[in-house]
Amino acid sequence: MPSSYRTFRNSVPWLILSLEAVFIVLFYFLFSDDGVFIESYSAFRDVNHMLIFGFGFFLMFLKRYGFSSTGFNLLVIVLGVQCSVLIDTFVLLLQRQSKHQLERLIKAAMSMTAVVISTGAVLGKTNPVQLILMTVLELIVFRMSRWMNTTFLQITDNISMMHVHLFGAYFGLAVSSRFSEPSPRSDKNASTPKSDLLSMLGTLFLWVFWPSFNSVVSESKWRAIYNTYFGLAVSAVTAFALSVLTTKDGKFRMTHIHSAVLAGGVAVGYAAHSIKYPWIAMVLGLLASVIAILGSYCSQRCLNPPLKLHDTSGVHFTFGMPAVLGALAQVILLIIKNWTNLPSLGYLVMIQVGTFCLTISVALITGFIAGLILNHRLFKTIPVSKYFDDQFYWEFPHLAVGF
Amino acid sequence: MPSSYRTFRNSVPWLILSLEAVFIVLFYFLFSDDGVFIESYSAFRDVNHMLIFGFGFFLMFLKRYGFSSTGFNLLVIVLGVQCSVLIDTFVLLLQRQSKHQLERLIKAAMSMTAVVISTGAVLGKTNPVQLILMTVLELIVFRMSRWMNTTFLQITDNISMMHVHLFGAYFGLAVSSRFSEPSPRSDKNASTPKSDLLSMLGTLFLWVFWPSFNSVVSESKWRAIYNTYFGLAVSAVTAFALSVLTTKDGKFRMTHIHSAVLAGGVAVGYAAHSIKYPWIAMVLGLLASVIAILGSYCSQRCLNPPLKLHDTSGVHFTFGMPAVLGALAQVILLIIKNWTNLPSLGYLVMIQVGTFCLTISVALITGFIAGLILNHRLFKTIPVSKYFDDQFYWEFPHLAVGF
Amino acid sequence: MPSSYRTFRNSVPWLILSLEAVFIVLFYFLFSDDGVFIESYSAFRDVNHMLIFGFGFFLMFLKRYGFSSTGFNLLVIVLGVQCSVLIDTFVLLLQRQSKHQLERLIKAAMSMTAVVISTGAVLGKTNPVQLILMTVLELIVFRMSRWMNTTFLQITDNISMMHVHLFGAYFGLAVSSRFSEPSPRSDKNASTPKSDLLSMLGTLFLWVFWPSFNSVVSESKWRAIYNTYFGLAVSAVTAFALSVLTTKDGKFRMTHIHSAVLAGGVAVGYAAHSIKYPWIAMVLGLLASVIAILGSYCSQRCLNPPLKLHDTSGVHFTFGMPAVLGALAQVILLIIKNWTNLPSLGYLVMIQVGTFCLTISVALITGFIAGLILNHRLFKTIPVSKYFDDQFYWEFPHLAVGF
Repeated sequence: MPSSYRTFRNSVPWLILSLEAVFIVLFYFLFSDDGVFIESYSAFRDVNHMLIFGFGFFLMFLKRYGFSSTGFNLLVIVLGVQCSVLIDTFVLLLQRQSKHQLERLIKAAMSMTAVVISTGAVLGKTNPVQLILMTVLELIVFRMSRWMNTTFLQITDNISMMHVHLFGAYFGLAVSSRFSEPSPRSDKNASTPKSDLLSMLGTLFLWVFWPSFNSVVSESKWRAIYNTYFGLAVSAVTAFALSVLTTKDGKFRMTHIHSAVLAGGVAVGYAAHSIKYPWIAMVLGLLASVIAILGSYCSQRCLNPPLKLHDTSGVHFTFGMPAVLGALAQVILLIIKNWTNLPSLGYLVMIQVGTFCLTISVALITGFIAGLILNHRLFKTIPVSKYFDDQFYWEFPHLAVGF
Repeated sequence: MPSSYRTFRNSVPWLILSLEAVFIVLFYFLFSDDGVFIESYSAFRDVNHMLIFGFGFFLMFLKRYGFSSTGFNLLVIVLGVQCSVLIDTFVLLLQRQSKHQLERLIKAAMSMTAVVISTGAVLGKTNPVQLILMTVLELIVFRMSRWMNTTFLQITDNISMMHVHLFGAYFGLAVSSRFSEPSPRSDKNASTPKSDLLSMLGTLFLWVFWPSFNSVVSESKWRAIYNTYFGLAVSAVTAFALSVLTTKDGKFRMTHIHSAVLAGGVAVGYAAHSIKYPWIAMVLGLLASVIAILGSYCSQRCLNPPLKLHDTSGVHFTFGMPAVLGALAQVILLIIKNWTNLPSLGYLVMIQVGTFCLTISVALITGFIAGLILNHRLFKTIPVSKYFDDQFYWEFPHLAVGF
Repeated sequence: MPSSYRTFRNSVPWLILSLEAVFIVLFYFLFSDDGVFIESYSAFRDVNHMLIFGFGFFLMFLKRYGFSSTGFNLLVIVLGVQCSVLIDTFVLLLQRQSKHQLERLIKAAMSMTAVVISTGAVLGKTNPVQLILMTVLELIVFRMSRWMNTTFLQITDNISMMHVHLFGAYFGLAVSSRFSEPSPRSDKNASTPKSDLLSMLGTLFLWVFWPSFNSVVSESKWRAIYNTYFGLAVSAVTAFALSVLTTKDGKFRMTHIHSAVLAGGVAVGYAAHSIKYPWIAMVLGLLASVIAILGSYCSQRCLNPPLKLHDTSGVHFTFGMPAVLGALAQVILLIIKNWTNLPSLGYLVMIQVGTFCLTISVALITGFIAGLILNHRLFKTIPVSKYFDDQFYWEFPHLAVGF
């Protein structure tokens, strides 16, 4: 290992510790007790469970990157939640508003979903310092995008929060476009049956808790729950069917199942609280799953090579495209619901389309800039040969290779 | 692979997709919004967690069947829950009754337990089409059996639901009697320490959530919870003790622990809401565990060979016999409680015995018929040499063998 | 295996069964139905989940001891909870008080945390009989210590319960000091990447549910939740930073992460309900993590060799020292809060210091005695060469070695 690396590495803990010290000082000034107890701890715990456990294991499909997937996921989340609470407090101070602490904590955990999705796109290609920097940048930008949505387009804070998958996926893709592609001859960018099983464990966790996620900030909780449930169910069924159709020999492919079973939950996210009949959620789930599998099938052939995109966990088709579908569906549902009242319809549709365009543009532009910043040589981009490798970061017991 | 297989395989996704399309159309006509929110989401989530995650990993003990155990479990559940909701809606339409959607969804998830238990009996021997067909058949028959119980024997819908383990186990056994026995020389029908550990993971999940399951539809929830907890606790203790007694060298056997720790929960299921003193639940848990371990010990020697039964996951002694014990215990508890009032006692006992006999007969007869249908050559029964093998269904990364 | 071993082994199940029989008989006399339903089932389920699942997998880091870690953990917990409920009922009978059953069950589960932590210190060195005896002894002594605290020092029962980590860690250390040290040449006292990942799985579970644990018996639940959450978050961040600083080459070490991420939760435990500003909890989390990592770094070099201590899971620095820190912090917080009112301050501080000294002395003294009893030759201490070995207790499928 070159000595410049060692010097850099030795600075990592000091960076983390000083960041943490800044957070504590800011908490000292900004965060006080308001002594109210609200009955939503179980919602918070579910979201927390999804983040720490679900995503930690969902991202564990690379055969030599299990420690980093779950470990760095934990590091990013614990730093990010504190950072997000602080950002939210700043914004509230500026707006002279107030919000309950538990609400702030739940929203902080939900915002972290965007970051975790983005890390999926650059999984295995970033060092911890780049990850932490990306977390802080993305949280600031995402809060800014939500602030613009609520201020200029007058949508509620809770609905702006449901853009979290869209934002996370496209920010992550834009960042990943600035990283070198992994060598196609490398065998590290692959899974083993064992890592696939552990990833399935995480996926099932996410699947079970997704209705909790979509209903946390929703006003008609029960409707959000059953719409999400049926959307997820149909997207899981479709995933199995399409997996057989798109592989040779008519076999199932685990990667398809991992990504497509969740697509339905993402697509239903926006509109879950307003869909009146579950069959609509089911159709959305079906379309989301089709997009996730066919999209991943096409993109590996046509889209990614010219754009030089490399998206390790396929977040584009697990979270990005289904979120676009969900936004589109909400517009169509609005049109169907209000088609008798044309003037107000035009306004409503404009708001929705505006929100969507604003969010995705902010995500892509700032993601691109973030990618440029992260690849500055100050942050010691890791060499392509060390991509997807736990041993670069972790002490291994007995140096067992390719466990 | 013969070409007829390939043709068959290519028809699988279309079958799944058209089934899903039928479901969506039916939902369009039958399922509407009723806009009420009931505070039982956490109960639903627990049951869902048990099904998707607990059973998915509980059934993962076969060394080369991990992908299929957890994957097909997910497929069967997501299709089955939709199917079960529809069947329930039909029955309610016929009876001109109405039920809340969340209640229907919870009952659908609980009914799926029967199917998941049945799939345990034929684990590794069915292809996905057979599994799906079995799911649909079993759900219809189980709903029919519950309908007969509530209509002719006047027991409440909630109590008829607790026959779910009994029905699932004996239906599964009857189905499995129609499948060829695996070759005794095959080494695939075995576990590795790793698959045993993952199965333990699922078992512990089921163990922790079992009190939730038994209390979901119960009227005195807290009593159901603590009786189930103590029943499970004693059955776990007994499992360890008996495992030492029945193995050579006085060692523990993981398979015993897996099955016997849950037996107590099954046995207590029926009567959990009516047992007044926890010591009764504890005695039931002890007996259930004894039955599960001694039963599995004897059956492998005496019962299964002449009946040509092969029960992959031992559902007969994990779920079947403990459920019989539970039904018996309820009758005895009834007699003790009402022995001063002989006329009404006779009636009550007759009802209980009638329910039990009705449920088990329907399960065995329809299971046998379902087994015959499933083995029709239309469904391309898989050859015995391909039993218990993931590679027959799944693309394997790098074709790693015997991970 | 010598024949005396076989005889001993054959007596194990009878011991377990007769203990269980005694429990059932005692339940028959002591435990009756009180028919009230309290809305705290979800708290109980969370604590139960932590014990059965979280600790079961947390302790699974030894490469050849996975079956025993999770299996014996289950056995100890199910026996211990029953035992603890009985002890609590006895004490309440003597005090002529009454308590709701669910409350008793929750407190029983919480007390078991002490036992599970103690078993961590002697992990791999005890046979099941020793474990069971230790469980019963520790539960009696811990209840006695809590009784002394509430009677002589007038602290509330709920606060005395939060000494559970302190008691468990030092009792376990005292017990482990009486066991032979494992041979330094043995390669069994080590982890593999796979066992480390499964242990990470348990750790993340504990991490997610820790706020539930700290808030179960707390009066201001929400304050306990967010203080614990922030304490845990900062301790996780610090764990990553310090792990890099204390290892060669600036790599992360999984063992550090496992133990230090939880230290914050332990340290905040005592004072979680009374800390008004989260930054205090965050500082505590930071200090706890520093103590956990630096402590483990020093103790392996300086402390343990002269004391002949061998602490398999590092409970001293994961649970012991952070609990001491927490107790100290509570005293300091008391002083800051009441420094204007000197007379009452002296009294309050004396109570806190008294409680701390009482608990730790009882733990150390009785732990030492328990260690002596457990090593009596009646209990067939296992030979050092058989430490950390599943095959000594479990039938292994195909005798696969070193999975």
